[in-house]
Amino acid sequence: MIMADSNALALTVLAEHFAKLPGIGMKSAQRLAYHVVSMPDSEARAFADAIITAHKTVHECSVCCNLTDKTLCPICGSDRRDRSVICVVESPKDVTAFERTKEYKGVYHVLHGLISPIDNVMPESLRIKQLLARLQDGTVKEVIMATNPTVEGEATAMYLSRMLKPLGVKVTRLAFGLPMGAVLEFADEVTLYKALENRNEI
Amino acid sequence: MIMADSNALALTVLAEHFAKLPGIGMKSAQRLAYHVVSMPDSEARAFADAIITAHKTVHECSVCCNLTDKTLCPICGSDRRDRSVICVVESPKDVTAFERTKEYKGVYHVLHGLISPIDNVMPESLRIKQLLARLQDGTVKEVIMATNPTVEGEATAMYLSRMLKPLGVKVTRLAFGLPMGAVLEFADEVTLYKALENRNEI
Repeated sequence: MIMADSNALALTVLAEHFAKLPGIGMKSAQRLAYHVVSMPDSEARAFADAIITAHKTVHECSVCCNLTDKTLCPICGSDRRDRSVICVVESPKDVTAFERTKEYKGVYHVLHGLISPIDNVMPESLRIKQLLARLQDGTVKEVIMATNPTVEGEATAMYLSRMLKPLGVKVTRLAFGLPMGAVLEFADEVTLYKALENRNEI
Repeated sequence: MIMADSNALALTVLAEHFAKLPGIGMKSAQRLAYHVVSMPDSEARAFADAIITAHKTVHECSVCCNLTDKTLCPICGSDRRDRSVICVVESPKDVTAFERTKEYKGVYHVLHGLISPIDNVMPESLRIKQLLARLQDGTVKEVIMATNPTVEGEATAMYLSRMLKPLGVKVTRLAFGLPMGAVLEFADEVTLYKALENRNEI
């Protein structure tokens, strides 16, 4: 119970739900719960519906594992994308970041995490099997490792490159135009494009 | 549209709902929406239900206008509180802050805002009528103005004190142990109790 002194149980329950979200502390959660209560009826209902709808309709693309509400995401479904290059990223947020550069014409593969034994994230819990399946028919010539330049990001890139190189595919890594320890999602477009342009074979 | 490049409409809709909440920017909203999609089914459903339930069951106490899920809030319903002293606050969060001091035994009145012509908040949109109704039967001996020490908080305290003094009730103001410009909700218990203890008649 984060607010034992609250005088409405439903408010406490809602605040606790908000507090479970990433980056939302106890004070903010309480403030958000108060805000929801003071919303017009239609808005509160629309918010709740949006949660249910997003949770129900959004799932992983059957090719790249990015989140989408169709069978194929718009990128995998497009005939203007270069299917010979796959950019491997940690999360859907990273796809959005690369798309903002408007320079990358290849496709993506979303791992949904990075190898991190300390957090109990093993290679088996990432979408690596799905990535290997995409390399079977020989269309793919290059795989770009576009994970964050952190310990986990580097480890995952190394692990994957050792696994993919024997399959005869070129494996590259984003150039370190990005400062070490940064979070990819917040990089500006130019830095991100520079990093993409200067990628090196590993 | 905050995320024109998102590849799932439902995700964009949900992120927009999050972005409408106070203190949540575009990046955080996107992150929260992704988090909701990756939640277990039961948790997403419980979150949506909590919004609906809180919005439906939580309303204003018929006496003090604090938020509650009963007709009377626990404080107005308690027989251990001193009904001769009313502490007038801006919002339910402030009641929680005073209750944390565990020193105040009187009751509260929640205005749900402060007079602020620049934001188009006029005295009529606050719960002033309900406060006046509580002063009719002569039980109340003192009204403590416990609004924030900001321009709006001071103006509201002055406005109310001019309105209440002719009714023969003692009107006091929190002592300025609180630094000017601070936000009441984040004050520590001791400072808040000092401010309550050193209140002055205005």
